[in-house]
Amino acid sequence: MRIAIVGATGAVGQELLHVFAQRHAPVEILRLFASPRSAGVPIEFRSQRIEVEPLSADTFAREKFDAVFFSAGAAISREHAPRAVQAGAVVIDNSSAFRMEPHVPLGVPEINPDAIRKHQGLIAVPNCTAIILCMAVYPLHRLSRIRRIVVSTYQAISGAGARALAELEEQTRCMAEGIPVAAKVLPHQVIHNVFSHNTAIGADGYNGEESKVIQETRKILGDADMLISPTCIRVPVPRAHSESINLTFEQPVSVQQAREALSHAPGVRLVDDREHNHFPMPVEASRGDHVLVGRLREDPSQPDGRGLNLFACGDQLRKGAALDAVQILELLRTSRV
Amino acid sequence: MRIAIVGATGAVGQELLHVFAQRHAPVEILRLFASPRSAGVPIEFRSQRIEVEPLSADTFAREKFDAVFFSAGAAISREHAPRAVQAGAVVIDNSSAFRMEPHVPLGVPEINPDAIRKHQGLIAVPNCTAIILCMAVYPLHRLSRIRRIVVSTYQAISGAGARALAELEEQTRCMAEGIPVAAKVLPHQVIHNVFSHNTAIGADGYNGEESKVIQETRKILGDADMLISPTCIRVPVPRAHSESINLTFEQPVSVQQAREALSHAPGVRLVDDREHNHFPMPVEASRGDHVLVGRLREDPSQPDGRGLNLFACGDQLRKGAALDAVQILELLRTSRV
Repeated sequence: MRIAIVGATGAVGQELLHVFAQRHAPVEILRLFASPRSAGVPIEFRSQRIEVEPLSADTFAREKFDAVFFSAGAAISREHAPRAVQAGAVVIDNSSAFRMEPHVPLGVPEINPDAIRKHQGLIAVPNCTAIILCMAVYPLHRLSRIRRIVVSTYQAISGAGARALAELEEQTRCMAEGIPVAAKVLPHQVIHNVFSHNTAIGADGYNGEESKVIQETRKILGDADMLISPTCIRVPVPRAHSESINLTFEQPVSVQQAREALSHAPGVRLVDDREHNHFPMPVEASRGDHVLVGRLREDPSQPDGRGLNLFACGDQLRKGAALDAVQILELLRTSRV
Repeated sequence: MRIAIVGATGAVGQELLHVFAQRHAPVEILRLFASPRSAGVPIEFRSQRIEVEPLSADTFAREKFDAVFFSAGAAISREHAPRAVQAGAVVIDNSSAFRMEPHVPLGVPEINPDAIRKHQGLIAVPNCTAIILCMAVYPLHRLSRIRRIVVSTYQAISGAGARALAELEEQTRCMAEGIPVAAKVLPHQVIHNVFSHNTAIGADGYNGEESKVIQETRKILGDADMLISPTCIRVPVPRAHSESINLTFEQPVSVQQAREALSHAPGVRLVDDREHNHFPMPVEASRGDHVLVGRLREDPSQPDGRGLNLFACGDQLRKGAALDAVQILELLRTSRV
């Protein structure tokens, strides 16, 4: 396959290359695009040296691709993705540009493969927090419709990009050496701190990340009426997002039923060892493909066994972004056979 | 006043000394007790050098105190606190030993001063997470009875004691220097990670911390039927606990009403600047006396304006422990006049 990555030098772009290599993606031609300031940067892929190119208005008119992965922000996707689709490529877009367009599937292959297969040239990869939430609750939603989700997040710094991740490392060093910590990329001190997600707050008081969680979760699960109350918080963790999830079901769901469903769900690993106090943690979810789910317990504050609490953890660069994108391509290839 | 601290070398004991000094506590005689292995350790207080003494069975029979602060764990309190009460001292107990005894007030002076005044010799300081939760929601509970709380915590490492706090610092250094991180005091890696609270899990799936939050919040707020669903999580933060709080009221409460109530509540500071994305954070709550509350917003998943979301942050060693204890003593002194 002839494949292009737009945003190849970013955190998600770099992870796409790792996932391609790990999953032996059938890449014949690989072209890497990024902003002009990264042009010429050499990137290693399968012991090949590929130079990053700047994207131009006629890139996709000049050269044909089977698939183009976009992870360079919404503005770049808005400008260039339609051109790539026009030229016949399947676009798998990690940005938020087209996610809520009615004709664009919001793809999580374990959850909505049929929607993905019906694409019209472009498939959006959902917001990382929404993907991890949906992976954790979808197996339960199949047991009994989820009516309400209250979710508080513990979000990794890589979600704010490669520069933010470097800032966490720099602040870790400053803290260790007793040097004053300076916030440059993110608005507040990251190390030894937590803060409300760094997206703008809307008129309703919810920040951009929380609004995405509400809208995208409904779209992925195909349930426009699902009630969702999110609080998105950043924590000093490099890669994996954690989520404390409180559910209200239409019908009672027992811990045993939930455990059973999660232990058979693709892409999910049940980590729920009460005796050893071993539950999902970022250090164990990081660089892994699975969303870890555990701390399953009945919610005593809800009547009739219709409430459950759980804790989930997933690598936001992998299942939250790059892995999901590559799985979408894999699904399309399999479906075509 | 003749005052003793039992557990003087621990994280809370040390903080008690800071709070005494800052608030000009009327300490005439101060005696410091700790485990035998700390005996002889010199501790500075108001440019005086006080040697730590081991506690013995007849300590409180031999010497009279007006007030004894216990912060050396539940077992020590269970053994020695009744002896101090017997000898005529007021005991202010930071351990969990007596908190749920019906005749023991669970003291938060801003909330239940009358209960504190009716003590029978011993007043318990509540669990830190419960104190911070109650401080944040009590001003709203007065507007309309809170029927249900769903709370997810972001708990500081100092809650696990001085040795755990030192472990966070050590792991910060290891991470900065690329040395493998070893978990010794706490069960899991602390730095660049989050994990479910390190207390044992009960038969209902809730850990010790969560059970305390449920029971103690009900007792502090004097509402035995309040529905509470907690998830307690540790984060790599030294001192201040954060809490993401979802409320259901009996009657509608608007964001404006909540803001108004919180901005006049003693011991609370409203930090709710949507424009500058400035909300409660551990770095700003640490070493401060106030519980910071903000991110106030209507919960769209609850009908009729009966739901609110908020985020709170308080120094668990201060208002969560030492400050609350000293305020209890101050209340008793004022009441006596």
